[in-house]
Amino acid sequence: MDWTELTLDQLRSCKAELEAEYAGYVKQNLKLDMSRGKPAGTQLDLSAGVLDKLESCRTENGTDARNYGGLDGIPEAKKLFSDLLDIPAERLIIGGNSSLNMMYDSVVRCLLFGASSQTPWGKLPKVKFLCPAPGYDRHFAICEDLGIEMITVPLLADGPDMDLVEKLAAADDSIKGIWCVPLYSNPQGVCYSDRTVERLASMKAAPDFRIFWDNAYGVHHIYSEEKVADIFDACTRAGNPDRAFYFFSTSKITFPGAGVALMASSESNVAEIKKHLGIQTIGPDKLNQLRTIRFLKNADGVRAHMRRMAAELKPKFDVVLTTLERELGGTGLAEWTRPKGGYFVAVDTLDNCAKATVDLAKKAGVTLTGAGAAFPYHRDPRDRNIRLAPTYPTLEDLTLAIRLFCVCVKLTGVSRLIAEKE
Amino acid sequence: MDWTELTLDQLRSCKAELEAEYAGYVKQNLKLDMSRGKPAGTQLDLSAGVLDKLESCRTENGTDARNYGGLDGIPEAKKLFSDLLDIPAERLIIGGNSSLNMMYDSVVRCLLFGASSQTPWGKLPKVKFLCPAPGYDRHFAICEDLGIEMITVPLLADGPDMDLVEKLAAADDSIKGIWCVPLYSNPQGVCYSDRTVERLASMKAAPDFRIFWDNAYGVHHIYSEEKVADIFDACTRAGNPDRAFYFFSTSKITFPGAGVALMASSESNVAEIKKHLGIQTIGPDKLNQLRTIRFLKNADGVRAHMRRMAAELKPKFDVVLTTLERELGGTGLAEWTRPKGGYFVAVDTLDNCAKATVDLAKKAGVTLTGAGAAFPYHRDPRDRNIRLAPTYPTLEDLTLAIRLFCVCVKLTGVSRLIAEKE
Repeated sequence: MDWTELTLDQLRSCKAELEAEYAGYVKQNLKLDMSRGKPAGTQLDLSAGVLDKLESCRTENGTDARNYGGLDGIPEAKKLFSDLLDIPAERLIIGGNSSLNMMYDSVVRCLLFGASSQTPWGKLPKVKFLCPAPGYDRHFAICEDLGIEMITVPLLADGPDMDLVEKLAAADDSIKGIWCVPLYSNPQGVCYSDRTVERLASMKAAPDFRIFWDNAYGVHHIYSEEKVADIFDACTRAGNPDRAFYFFSTSKITFPGAGVALMASSESNVAEIKKHLGIQTIGPDKLNQLRTIRFLKNADGVRAHMRRMAAELKPKFDVVLTTLERELGGTGLAEWTRPKGGYFVAVDTLDNCAKATVDLAKKAGVTLTGAGAAFPYHRDPRDRNIRLAPTYPTLEDLTLAIRLFCVCVKLTGVSRLIAEKE
Repeated sequence: MDWTELTLDQLRSCKAELEAEYAGYVKQNLKLDMSRGKPAGTQLDLSAGVLDKLESCRTENGTDARNYGGLDGIPEAKKLFSDLLDIPAERLIIGGNSSLNMMYDSVVRCLLFGASSQTPWGKLPKVKFLCPAPGYDRHFAICEDLGIEMITVPLLADGPDMDLVEKLAAADDSIKGIWCVPLYSNPQGVCYSDRTVERLASMKAAPDFRIFWDNAYGVHHIYSEEKVADIFDACTRAGNPDRAFYFFSTSKITFPGAGVALMASSESNVAEIKKHLGIQTIGPDKLNQLRTIRFLKNADGVRAHMRRMAAELKPKFDVVLTTLERELGGTGLAEWTRPKGGYFVAVDTLDNCAKATVDLAKKAGVTLTGAGAAFPYHRDPRDRNIRLAPTYPTLEDLTLAIRLFCVCVKLTGVSRLIAEKE
């Protein structure tokens, strides 16, 4: 039944029913949180081995990991991530517990020291980034914090709207970067097509333009194992070998905020980064690298671990997707993505309904990610995008929360249709 | 015997003897490293408990330390360091594995965002720091990396030459900071007097002037338990409550580069810092904080641990100090400090002899810290300061290395006296 085609009377009767249903939820005094991309305890339990006693602190090359030394990671970490991500070890910098921190610091280095021997961004009158949206709120927060103007670009089914990206980047030298989550993007689960990767790597742009390639969900498959084209290969082929900064972490493989993060880039960029990094710190926590790598063992070990993780997550994604389909399918009140992996499902309500829907859910005790969070400056131009984060609640709570969510989408949508018709 | 008063013939005869002695060392093909302030394996063994299985990951307030959340440290870490350092918990930010990183980032924040609502330092034509020297080379490296001009200020027996510091800070608004290691300074082991602390806190300076108070050796006593006056109290009393950034870490308590670092400042500075820190990272590694704190237990636990550490270090400092006294005492060829704690002994040779002495030792297989390392731009104006780092070698190696060192000091000194007289 397409609700957008109902008569005013029909809508009013639907609304009354929905209000009764909603009141039923309110009475339950729920307190459910599906706002954050946090793993559930059961997911974390899969990595319990990381917490075991560290029997030997010698790395493969004989370094005592308890002591100073080593700026870019222990050899076994380099090997594992090189194998897993198909990036030559000499392009990797294995860091501390936070890839976000490595992204922030990478932007800061460009502000202070410049990139590709160009003027430091901080000395320019204006610096702008292209921000495919919906996207990851913390990418946008970095721009806001560091005074970088954000230009919103629509994220389509195969990546950013490349016609627009190419047009903007070619025309404006003050555009210095783009934020990309190329696989299972946050929040929609979009995977970039080969053509998108090709175009990003080869398009005309400022010589110090950088792709911030946050491969946060690079091995986080659920329904199928999607792949994304190699950004470094594409950049090299296009004659822009220094264009990409690549980021990854085990925060959603082992423990969030207590895993191992890394970045990668061209050898020339890596040399430049290490020059400053070696002043900023004596090195990352090698003991945590050792713990994490000993637990994961090798690239195949990570893949096996992520299959166990997928088995943990699939029932939750199933319940979200089947409930959305059952409750909202064909109503015309919402569209949503069916991601093959990652951490989120994104729902688009009718225009101007996202904020009201989130508020309504909140009043009934279910916290969702704030409406607009996935857009630069928190401004969703059509106020319709809502990010659902299915991982953290129990399956039981999630089932309840997603049902209530559907009631809220319908109630808000129906109210809006009524207002339009009245 | 004061060698500076010997005749040319006497000096030549001494030189011949020293050359024979030196040749004897060369023959041994030594390969000893006393260049770095690194703990020995035996010191690290004292913290083996940190490596134990982490039995529960719940913090005192019930947070699952395996998951996201918590920007400024787990409550038990805040409590321990608050007790240990006598700093209110709300002034503390407990961070990752590197206080150097927190220092670097603190300077970067001032460059990007300013301090005390003044113009960001990065927007000023020039920024200068006062650098008491001899000092810590990595402080100076931060200035060099970030384009901050360094003004060398002599470090006297009770802290920086405050007459000069006051004069410079009052006269030049572009002077924005000073690096201080107030207890057992690197490399001389100087402890700041109460009067020095008072003068630093109350002197006239730019409104956004910052004291970078690196209390790296705050609990690292060896021969006696020295104390330094409370910098925050002094700043508050003087009406400059926001003047100090305080840093500390357990790198030389538990594991270097795998311990817990922290910074502290006024509540208003801490609020400002957290605003940016919360964009830069989702938070520090709480599991490592938990491991470290569970092992150290509480402030008394740290003190007891540091007494065991002192017992480990005292024989090494003893051998350095007694050998220096026996071999160089009264020769007029060198002066040195007798630190009560910390990690180093600093030797001043005759003018223009440090580099030659270090080179000579190197040729005989003993690596010392590079001459000049303790000065801004690596420029020791009198080329006389050498930092000895007694902790890392075994007692046996150290005994040999320090004897050879004394031969090198004497040989270089005598050669220089001969050159003067010829």
